[in-house]
Amino acid sequence: MGLNVYLSGEIHTDWREQIIDGAQGLDITFISPVTDHDASDDCGVAILGEEPNKYWHDHKGAMVNAIRTRKGIADADVVVVRFGEKYKQWNAAFDAGYAAALGKSLIVLHGPDHQHALKEVDAAALAVAEQPSQVVEVLRYVLTGTLPG
Amino acid sequence: MGLNVYLSGEIHTDWREQIIDGAQGLDITFISPVTDHDASDDCGVAILGEEPNKYWHDHKGAMVNAIRTRKGIADADVVVVRFGEKYKQWNAAFDAGYAAALGKSLIVLHGPDHQHALKEVDAAALAVAEQPSQVVEVLRYVLTGTLPG
Amino acid sequence: MGLNVYLSGEIHTDWREQIIDGAQGLDITFISPVTDHDASDDCGVAILGEEPNKYWHDHKGAMVNAIRTRKGIADADVVVVRFGEKYKQWNAAFDAGYAAALGKSLIVLHGPDHQHALKEVDAAALAVAEQPSQVVEVLRYVLTGTLPG
Amino acid sequence: MGLNVYLSGEIHTDWREQIIDGAQGLDITFISPVTDHDASDDCGVAILGEEPNKYWHDHKGAMVNAIRTRKGIADADVVVVRFGEKYKQWNAAFDAGYAAALGKSLIVLHGPDHQHALKEVDAAALAVAEQPSQVVEVLRYVLTGTLPG
Amino acid sequence: MGLNVYLSGEIHTDWREQIIDGAQGLDITFISPVTDHDASDDCGVAILGEEPNKYWHDHKGAMVNAIRTRKGIADADVVVVRFGEKYKQWNAAFDAGYAAALGKSLIVLHGPDHQHALKEVDAAALAVAEQPSQVVEVLRYVLTGTLPG
Amino acid sequence: MGLNVYLSGEIHTDWREQIIDGAQGLDITFISPVTDHDASDDCGVAILGEEPNKYWHDHKGAMVNAIRTRKGIADADVVVVRFGEKYKQWNAAFDAGYAAALGKSLIVLHGPDHQHALKEVDAAALAVAEQPSQVVEVLRYVLTGTLPG
Amino acid sequence: MGLNVYLSGEIHTDWREQIIDGAQGLDITFISPVTDHDASDDCGVAILGEEPNKYWHDHKGAMVNAIRTRKGIADADVVVVRFGEKYKQWNAAFDAGYAAALGKSLIVLHGPDHQHALKEVDAAALAVAEQPSQVVEVLRYVLTGTLPG
Amino acid sequence: MGLNVYLSGEIHTDWREQIIDGAQGLDITFISPVTDHDASDDCGVAILGEEPNKYWHDHKGAMVNAIRTRKGIADADVVVVRFGEKYKQWNAAFDAGYAAALGKSLIVLHGPDHQHALKEVDAAALAVAEQPSQVVEVLRYVLTGTLPG
Repeated sequence: MGLNVYLSGEIHTDWREQIIDGAQGLDITFISPVTDHDASDDCGVAILGEEPNKYWHDHKGAMVNAIRTRKGIADADVVVVRFGEKYKQWNAAFDAGYAAALGKSLIVLHGPDHQHALKEVDAAALAVAEQPSQVVEVLRYVLTGTLPG
Repeated sequence: MGLNVYLSGEIHTDWREQIIDGAQGLDITFISPVTDHDASDDCGVAILGEEPNKYWHDHKGAMVNAIRTRKGIADADVVVVRFGEKYKQWNAAFDAGYAAALGKSLIVLHGPDHQHALKEVDAAALAVAEQPSQVVEVLRYVLTGTLPG
Repeated sequence: MGLNVYLSGEIHTDWREQIIDGAQGLDITFISPVTDHDASDDCGVAILGEEPNKYWHDHKGAMVNAIRTRKGIADADVVVVRFGEKYKQWNAAFDAGYAAALGKSLIVLHGPDHQHALKEVDAAALAVAEQPSQVVEVLRYVLTGTLPG
Repeated sequence: MGLNVYLSGEIHTDWREQIIDGAQGLDITFISPVTDHDASDDCGVAILGEEPNKYWHDHKGAMVNAIRTRKGIADADVVVVRFGEKYKQWNAAFDAGYAAALGKSLIVLHGPDHQHALKEVDAAALAVAEQPSQVVEVLRYVLTGTLPG
Repeated sequence: MGLNVYLSGEIHTDWREQIIDGAQGLDITFISPVTDHDASDDCGVAILGEEPNKYWHDHKGAMVNAIRTRKGIADADVVVVRFGEKYKQWNAAFDAGYAAALGKSLIVLHGPDHQHALKEVDAAALAVAEQPSQVVEVLRYVLTGTLPG
Repeated sequence: MGLNVYLSGEIHTDWREQIIDGAQGLDITFISPVTDHDASDDCGVAILGEEPNKYWHDHKGAMVNAIRTRKGIADADVVVVRFGEKYKQWNAAFDAGYAAALGKSLIVLHGPDHQHALKEVDAAALAVAEQPSQVVEVLRYVLTGTLPG
Repeated sequence: MGLNVYLSGEIHTDWREQIIDGAQGLDITFISPVTDHDASDDCGVAILGEEPNKYWHDHKGAMVNAIRTRKGIADADVVVVRFGEKYKQWNAAFDAGYAAALGKSLIVLHGPDHQHALKEVDAAALAVAEQPSQVVEVLRYVLTGTLPG
Repeated sequence: MGLNVYLSGEIHTDWREQIIDGAQGLDITFISPVTDHDASDDCGVAILGEEPNKYWHDHKGAMVNAIRTRKGIADADVVVVRFGEKYKQWNAAFDAGYAAALGKSLIVLHGPDHQHALKEVDAAALAVAEQPSQVVEVLRYVLTGTLPG
């Protein structure tokens, strides 16, 4: 058994690298959104033509990014959604809802401060972790039955 | 043609009342989550037993609320998601993602300040409005073909 | 047994009225798109705000109209798609493809001149008619088993 | 992450070759309909027996071609639909509707003259391009996060 | 609880009437195909135009009848398929397979002589009866919990 | 908003009556399996013919009961599954799994002694109750937003 | 593009071998039911225990064969169903209905004598052939765009 | 043709090894839940943090195990569910119901003592076996058409 895992959410810390590094040796294919913030914001207009209006500038980019996001979630067995300390991160919660409606196994990763605000998202999850290393341990256990320690 | 419309999101202003009042006379059944903040937070423990741990207190409530939310979205033709000025409102974004994955027609309602942060949510919508009255006008047009003015 | 029938396509002749009039007395609920050409073109900007760029003007309108179209096709047992003599009518062919993918029973209505150009659309249909009266007779037979004459 | 991309629509210019050539090195499997116009028109009768009536001649061919088209769209992550300058091209719009109803990511490729006539098709798309090279750049960005230039 | 029941198959005996009469007083909506043999054979050409070729004559009729059959099976909770003593009755077996793939509850009605030939069809059924009265008793039990006698 | 609620599981105590009585006045349609133990065991052979082998005797009955059970679960918004003190009750757990796979909102009702043995079933539920009155309170809250006391 | 093709129906002539031989060199994976008539009839009792009653003997076998048949059809892009000159062949028509309901591309293979009796089955097909060699030519065209001759 | 087979249920005897050993040489990928009883019970708290309450201890573990179970069943063509002599084994029956609702081919493995209690589960199965070697023979027959002896 192998797993496809989509890593959604925060792009300002190295949580994805921690998970991918920690999962070395496990039969997992990781997929992520484009995490280059500028490229992600500008991809629509850079390819399909400038928009003077910021709303449509954003819109064109969000649509192009959706091609990757939808594919990543559709192919995933497990969707990990990370909420960082800062920003609204509504796209992360949107991905979580999207994944939940498709019946994907959801793992949510966030600090204890966000517990109350994320209670509806956590309620749709099969695991709620505070550290990337815990996500790795969940994935390792799912694939191999081995517990840490 | 009638419509089932689910009204998701912010519970601190009267936007739901504005829409329901404005839509008087249209063949629409509106469904909303429980908008009594305290009841919504405490429903799990009030019915199913106390939890000393705040996380499980929240969890039990979120699960019970999910019975209503899932039914409301599943039955809806149109899901309106309102993002207010304050708070994280991750449950609103979660509902938007959930509705989008089920192929529901999505209308997003928020002020211009949130345009960039909500660009992925807006990109999944068929209409993005700033005022509840615009949502009413969209629903009126969809049902009757009549434009305002 | 009753039927929900969605009437898609050409808006410049009275074919919808002919079908609805001819089907008087049958247990059919007809749904149509908004057929007021100007309202249909302008609904997006009239409700959700002006767009200086014609492309986004059109886009906003097409999105709002999609709320009605999707609902109409989703609820339909039978989708009738009419191709008139003039114009590109790509939205009619789009609706036909959309309905076919959802497994709806498709009736295509067009003159003999369009047979070759519409062969892929006709190949997805359960009936291909040249006259609105034939569509009425198909619906009458489906509901009552009665043939004309 | 790799992509299956179905290339639907116009068969009289070399836009497919431009995209396939431009995408050299990317992990993409392209599928196209049969683009030999005569073979596509005659396949039904050439294999399954002559039809004196042109309608059934066309019909038998369209049905056989549908085996390939449905497989191509069903397997696709992304469906690119090209509308050329000439002809009705209703099969292209039909494929776009079919792909949209299946939740495929849709990229529409057409010149600016067709914007108004294609507004409903464009409204279902995640990207609207005027040049094959733009389609290549979208696909490259989706797979690698790299923007042109 | 009420039931929608589709009555498929043999049209040369009065088994449908026996079931419908026997089920008087139960909350059941029965739907049947058109059972007028001539109308069923000729509906396509009578409405949509003559065909000199018998194959296309039959084909046009079968397509029109499929509008009713698909609706009837799609709406059904229970599909009863009757195989009589005579004829090939491949449409009955086709309906049974169609219903089985959609997860409908299948009741097969046939005499003991056909047991071996129908073993694959019976294996997909939840009840196999020899007499219409047994079908009535199954439906009565399902709705009311009452056994005969 | 109204609810369809299927009451699955134990048939030896009056928990169904307690819930139905307690829910008087709420917009709920309750559906239950046939709870007459003898009728449920014998329905297959009583209607469709005796079987000397006890296995096939049971099998025929289980198949007939499945017509009602599947319909009840398919139509339900909420499935309540009760595990009593005695017996294996594998059909209750089977119904819970069946309902979970269909995305139904699951409420599990059992005493504290069964917590460990039912942990996988409880993990698929949105509410776990010990008393029928708690199920009533959950349903009341879901429909009206009102908490007890 | 490769194809999975399921070969359903008649087991008394060598039509499967003709198709598989003719398709040498094409990227096709063929799957067939077990075509050893005795093994197919007796597999249930040979493995799972004798049944004195012929009906249950047949039933057990049909259920075991269904494991293979369902897998074969579920995995197939194209389902070819052959009706021979003799026997009822209701399992072939059942497979055709099952495949049609799943949206598989259906090719029906039968002689001209069966045209009227198979008109409902043919109406669900994308190709109707009289000879195995025609099926090969359809598959070759679908995969390569090449016509015979 | 190869098969994915999920082995659900009892973890206290070596039935899985018997099946896997017996099936050597067949094109089958077997997947099982984590069968280390202690790891399975404790995985939630060992990775995601201690819970003083036994219910939540169990719950966290059951949720993590569900990631593997859902993936295993979702990928399976055949789900084998084993009921042993002892314990409640409600998770086995839950898996059987879950698999049945997804349309998986179900094989149930249990001794004759459990026939009556498992009649609803057996009624959803395509094969009911008493010995692991019979499961192997079913799988061998499904893949190769070969009967034992």
